[in-house]
Amino acid sequence: MAIKSKHVPDVDRLEKGLRSGDRTMLAQAITLAESTLDSDRKKSEQLIEKLLPLTGKSIRIGITGVPGVGKSTFIETFGELLAHEGRKIGVLTIDPSSEKSRGSILGDKTRMDRLSKNPNVFIRPSPTNLTLGGVSHRTRECMLLCEAAGFDVILIETVGVGQSETHVRNMVDFFLLLMLSGAGDELQGIKKGIIEMADGLVITKADGENIKAAGQAVADAKTALHLLAVPASGWKPRVQSVSSVENKGIELVWKMILEFQKFTMTSGFFQEHRSEQKKKWLEESLENLFRDAIAQPEFAARKEKMIARIMNDSVAPSEAARKLWKSLGAE
Amino acid sequence: MAIKSKHVPDVDRLEKGLRSGDRTMLAQAITLAESTLDSDRKKSEQLIEKLLPLTGKSIRIGITGVPGVGKSTFIETFGELLAHEGRKIGVLTIDPSSEKSRGSILGDKTRMDRLSKNPNVFIRPSPTNLTLGGVSHRTRECMLLCEAAGFDVILIETVGVGQSETHVRNMVDFFLLLMLSGAGDELQGIKKGIIEMADGLVITKADGENIKAAGQAVADAKTALHLLAVPASGWKPRVQSVSSVENKGIELVWKMILEFQKFTMTSGFFQEHRSEQKKKWLEESLENLFRDAIAQPEFAARKEKMIARIMNDSVAPSEAARKLWKSLGAE
Repeated sequence: MAIKSKHVPDVDRLEKGLRSGDRTMLAQAITLAESTLDSDRKKSEQLIEKLLPLTGKSIRIGITGVPGVGKSTFIETFGELLAHEGRKIGVLTIDPSSEKSRGSILGDKTRMDRLSKNPNVFIRPSPTNLTLGGVSHRTRECMLLCEAAGFDVILIETVGVGQSETHVRNMVDFFLLLMLSGAGDELQGIKKGIIEMADGLVITKADGENIKAAGQAVADAKTALHLLAVPASGWKPRVQSVSSVENKGIELVWKMILEFQKFTMTSGFFQEHRSEQKKKWLEESLENLFRDAIAQPEFAARKEKMIARIMNDSVAPSEAARKLWKSLGAE
Repeated sequence: MAIKSKHVPDVDRLEKGLRSGDRTMLAQAITLAESTLDSDRKKSEQLIEKLLPLTGKSIRIGITGVPGVGKSTFIETFGELLAHEGRKIGVLTIDPSSEKSRGSILGDKTRMDRLSKNPNVFIRPSPTNLTLGGVSHRTRECMLLCEAAGFDVILIETVGVGQSETHVRNMVDFFLLLMLSGAGDELQGIKKGIIEMADGLVITKADGENIKAAGQAVADAKTALHLLAVPASGWKPRVQSVSSVENKGIELVWKMILEFQKFTMTSGFFQEHRSEQKKKWLEESLENLFRDAIAQPEFAARKEKMIARIMNDSVAPSEAARKLWKSLGAE
């Protein structure tokens, strides 16, 4: 199903709007970026091309954790802290469950109620893109649009289910993993690969009766991190416990991120990492174009016919693939 | 680097040769299948197309395990047992290390010295294909060629490094995981995903001072398997300890495989699974054609130019990808 963009202004107007930080224009530019219509995609790429010089000036933070860990309350408290400092925060959420329900737009605005009303904050749930890999593709463009509109902290939220983490990790500077206390079990629930991606760990809900367990969780997480190799950044991931409801420890998470930024900018890793990410974006975009092409209904129909022939052994799969590939053409 | 096929007979002669079970022709047909020359690939596909009705009649067995577990001695003893029963065994090995050394052809023949001299056995190390995914692509074709030449048991050996296991799992009926005793540590060394793929586990080197540890390893492995969900086949994976040097337990592994075959043929899973594998082969072939296309030197050069432009922000990666995709065309 094509997601159409309705009543979107033309590229020039959008460009002007974003340059002046107009939030309505930003929302519309994102709608354009999310559109699956080919004409919209091209417009969106034109727009991003024009705005490229304005991008890249934010700090990009990925936030992940299993459902129930308290991501939205953390983002709400964290976002308010930054907004209070005068920063402009763009929040992009990637929720794989929304691929089915398509209900996340209202959901996200509701669950971050206070934050969504803050004039320094722009919240946008990621589109329910059905094409493989499409999620990250569009999220990256949304991030650039937010940056062009003057947002200087981008928070990208995702759920701890594996593939989406890797996508988000590929587009952010700092990757934050939220964990519940009772870490012994938790560490097993979260895939080791995701812990290895993290630049920082946050133990949530360190309040009330949970304080002791949270302290233990911090110690356990530190031990677990100790066993991992130091990542390419040279930065040793840190652990911080927080209480979002009591607003405790939140500012220390921000301090950790700023220290990371300073550390990696000094070493040159920050810039290198961004360059690597751009290359990866190119690779992923190519991959997406291929996946989009083979997901086209006409192609899928041709493929089904080939499968029928394969099943009665009248063509070998490799030969069938070659015929399909020839029929594909690029665009 | 293109791997050329020298002095390979034409498709008709190869077809006749394979139909009569000629081993030299089989070796040449495999060389053709392994060639990266486009003209050879087409010939090979023609040949396989002609031979398709002769394929699919073997039992296809994947064998994996970490280096040092004793795969080649197991295959040697196992292969001799089957050959002694009058079966014809094709052994295909996939060794990722050979991608670098290109030395596996001699290596494999040497390390399975007795077996390679057996008239009922054909051993072929997999080509050192440098294209991504190419390994499995060609191995599948080699398997079909062996089947067409009358081999009724195909053993595909791989090393426990993750991706190649999935490829092999996608082309065999039965997947056998070889493990050393001292399983407590071993189970952690082997990725859980690989254990989940196995239809059978074999604890090797159950001889001499190692017998007690092997018994414990069998018990541990059974416990570990108990914790896993029953696989789609409905077959509960079994554990068997063997000594290849003392030729103990080997025939029980074969019995296990025959029982698996009977069980899944009765339930219909065997045939369903093969149909699914053919579909997967088509998908993988398409994927490989895409990867081959983007690995072409001319394309890679165009991509490098684009990357240079991306680095100075004169083009967005998504737009660059679209241009590259357009330039790609299909063939």
